[in-house]
Amino acid sequence: VDPTFRDQYVKPSELLEMGFNSIITNAYLLKKHVNIVSDVHNYLRFSGVIMTDSGAYQILKYGGVEVSNEEIIQYQCKIKTDIGVILDIPTQYNVSFDEAYSSALETYSRAQEAIKVINSEQCQDILWVLPVQGGVYIDIVKEFAQKSVDVFYNGFSIFALGSPTTLLEQYLFDKVIDMIFAVRSNVPFSAPLHLFGAGHPLIIPFAVALGVDMFDSASYILYAKDDRYITRKGTYRLKELEYTLCSCPICSKYSPKELREIPKNERVKLLSMHNLYVIREEINEIKQAIKEGRFWEYLEAKAYMHPAAKKAFETLFKYLEYLYKHTPYSKPNVKAVLLVSQNSIYNPKVLIPRRKILSRISTVNKSIIIFIPYISKDKVFMNNFVSNILKYVSTDTGSAKVYLYYPIIGIIPYELLTLFPYSQFEIGVEITDKIIEDLTYIIFESISLLKKDTSITLIWCKEISWQQELINRIIKAMNNSKLQRHIKTMAIECT
Amino acid sequence: VDPTFRDQYVKPSELLEMGFNSIITNAYLLKKHVNIVSDVHNYLRFSGVIMTDSGAYQILKYGGVEVSNEEIIQYQCKIKTDIGVILDIPTQYNVSFDEAYSSALETYSRAQEAIKVINSEQCQDILWVLPVQGGVYIDIVKEFAQKSVDVFYNGFSIFALGSPTTLLEQYLFDKVIDMIFAVRSNVPFSAPLHLFGAGHPLIIPFAVALGVDMFDSASYILYAKDDRYITRKGTYRLKELEYTLCSCPICSKYSPKELREIPKNERVKLLSMHNLYVIREEINEIKQAIKEGRFWEYLEAKAYMHPAAKKAFETLFKYLEYLYKHTPYSKPNVKAVLLVSQNSIYNPKVLIPRRKILSRISTVNKSIIIFIPYISKDKVFMNNFVSNILKYVSTDTGSAKVYLYYPIIGIIPYELLTLFPYSQFEIGVEITDKIIEDLTYIIFESISLLKKDTSITLIWCKEISWQQELINRIIKAMNNSKLQRHIKTMAIECT
Repeated sequence: VDPTFRDQYVKPSELLEMGFNSIITNAYLLKKHVNIVSDVHNYLRFSGVIMTDSGAYQILKYGGVEVSNEEIIQYQCKIKTDIGVILDIPTQYNVSFDEAYSSALETYSRAQEAIKVINSEQCQDILWVLPVQGGVYIDIVKEFAQKSVDVFYNGFSIFALGSPTTLLEQYLFDKVIDMIFAVRSNVPFSAPLHLFGAGHPLIIPFAVALGVDMFDSASYILYAKDDRYITRKGTYRLKELEYTLCSCPICSKYSPKELREIPKNERVKLLSMHNLYVIREEINEIKQAIKEGRFWEYLEAKAYMHPAAKKAFETLFKYLEYLYKHTPYSKPNVKAVLLVSQNSIYNPKVLIPRRKILSRISTVNKSIIIFIPYISKDKVFMNNFVSNILKYVSTDTGSAKVYLYYPIIGIIPYELLTLFPYSQFEIGVEITDKIIEDLTYIIFESISLLKKDTSITLIWCKEISWQQELINRIIKAMNNSKLQRHIKTMAIECT
Repeated sequence: VDPTFRDQYVKPSELLEMGFNSIITNAYLLKKHVNIVSDVHNYLRFSGVIMTDSGAYQILKYGGVEVSNEEIIQYQCKIKTDIGVILDIPTQYNVSFDEAYSSALETYSRAQEAIKVINSEQCQDILWVLPVQGGVYIDIVKEFAQKSVDVFYNGFSIFALGSPTTLLEQYLFDKVIDMIFAVRSNVPFSAPLHLFGAGHPLIIPFAVALGVDMFDSASYILYAKDDRYITRKGTYRLKELEYTLCSCPICSKYSPKELREIPKNERVKLLSMHNLYVIREEINEIKQAIKEGRFWEYLEAKAYMHPAAKKAFETLFKYLEYLYKHTPYSKPNVKAVLLVSQNSIYNPKVLIPRRKILSRISTVNKSIIIFIPYISKDKVFMNNFVSNILKYVSTDTGSAKVYLYYPIIGIIPYELLTLFPYSQFEIGVEITDKIIEDLTYIIFESISLLKKDTSITLIWCKEISWQQELINRIIKAMNNSKLQRHIKTMAIECT
């Protein structure tokens, strides 16, 4: 098989038809095996974007290459690649700190050394990739991400995180997430970030969540050669499959049994195409979820498909503040917020408004504050419910400010009830200890931010046991903290 | 459009090509609009299995039909249907208990009345469906499921649950789950169960989990007519879609934008086909998951895709004993157990062995029992770890029986460590309060089942905080219960 990609099982032109408008090939192998001297687009018969890797993967795999950094950069210019990569030194898997440091430092030096060449006339139309190395040593990755920023602005266009391939193969997604964050949070947010060697639907969404913009992977074909069938939630051996789990043109035509009976070469091609369709689905669904403001929901659902995805998701929790910082505040143009687990507390569409409301509570000037349980999504019912309580609680309704409270959602100023997200969420969550604790925290925090002479009333529904528990915990927290506030609690019948 | 299905947007022969080898049509509409008098297979040009509904849906929708129970049964025999349905009286949505009772009783009477006809010579080759009605009134459904059993054995072959359509349309899956269980658990397990009107990928797996064998639904075409696009986790309006979320032959060919621009009639056909491909995927993935013994994992992942699915999943928890009773005990032929949330505790592949081990612990005759944390999946490491502890704890190793403990998995007799599922699980679960409580319970329960004079040692790793918490809780439970046992605890360094 041609190592330069042109005559691979799935041809570049077929990839374009499937919707992949950028491909990556290998400048080192092109130079070594074919040594073309003109436009790589012509050679590959591909009109889309071509990225060329530099031979770094061959260093990783075979320990070295017969070409220098400058040579391979100049070669990439000569063949008019669209996106070029310097000859970085990948950090091997399972090396010591010192070895990892050396590879990261050498990669950094080579980026510096490359500045002159990539700015030369024949190289100028190319977007250059600056890889950051360091492997699982987060401090090294961070150090060289920071150091690389100055170099980056001298002619580079894309950052990349190198070396995660072995970690990805072993489903050590938590480590990869940490590595991605180390780069992403230490380079300018406006710079695109490429993740080398990531092509599995289980990791892609979590990498995207942290701000990875581009991926490359040969997994679709490597898996196919090994008779493995990618799905959105893991990988099967073809021999394990009794039913087709996909509707792609391959899977609508052949059953797994029929696929197994097709001669190897043709089968590798068909499995490669299936694998590519699945990756395309994953990418499309991520894009759609982002567009409609439901990307958190997407990640939450993905997490429960595989323990490795769950670990990646839980690793993201370390970086929630970063995620919030980069979440658009504007209302998404579609769709209710879906609350499906206690992790929905961290959904930016829930948490960002929660914080805004808390941050403004100290400015409330009313002398009476009433917390009322939000027990129905029927607005007419809720309006009557609240009016009745107000009549009962306060003779001077005008001086009362009402907050509704609801698990996960937090507290809602009554006057915002009909606005997003308070009127547009769907909940399928069991009220766990963690959720009650969270709501206790929000209400307690709100109370502590209110003025000292405010009169506060907590209303709860007798027949809803978690509300009783909630009120007990708030009172307990008040006692423990010795916070001085005028609080009344009142149990009512809500049904 | 032809109401009898033959000239519908997707023709019966096209359905067969897509892998749907059974279809349902409507005997009442066939009789009323076409009045064919010979084999319906010829009329529909379909060589697969044909089921005919009786007009009950038209009663539900229009309040009545112009045909009697006996007439429509005889008509179904005449046209040589494969699966026939008596003219049942669907329980309308939102009716009173008395009205629901009447419809269930009348349906039951009609089943009795049908016995003579369905056993007549021309009707004998047909599998007859006995519908159970009652709507959301579970007691009614249960009563008539039980009463129907005798009638069933007089000529019927398939039970059915009627009337969930409106509930399904409103995503009230929890109610439907309760209704299904009311029928399934009160009729013989060997009798197939059909669920009328269920065709959405969000409900199908949960219905299958409770033992529903067959489904029918027109949702694929009704949604298509309304420009709605089914996915595995919900339904989109076509206008909301920017990216295709599927690789079916339709979606590999057209982008959502292109689909929107296709003339209505052709678009309805294409969307219908897409919707059918998605339903087929769902069914296939369910079958594959059952085959490989990972159906619980499948349900667990599905639950987090939508709040309605989560509710269906949580409703299943009421019926866990029933699920366990019907879970095969034999080792599935593939795949590790995937633990992704605290609900994995209830995975039958985890829970059934947990119970077996607990049930046998009282027969243990050793005088020393040692509980050791299972801290690594590396068998060599674990063997050394256990040997070292044994040397330290007991001079007479031969008299000690060792249990390893692990969250969710429970306690493992050391000698079973290399067997399924103890050597084959993957975990991606945060140690929550509920999980520690569960493990506390198992170890406490084990201790209470051991003989009084047994010497018990609990080992825990100093550096693992949840283990410290676990031991504290066990000791607290011992003190509260005043259970008399000889217990030593011992903190060690595990790393």
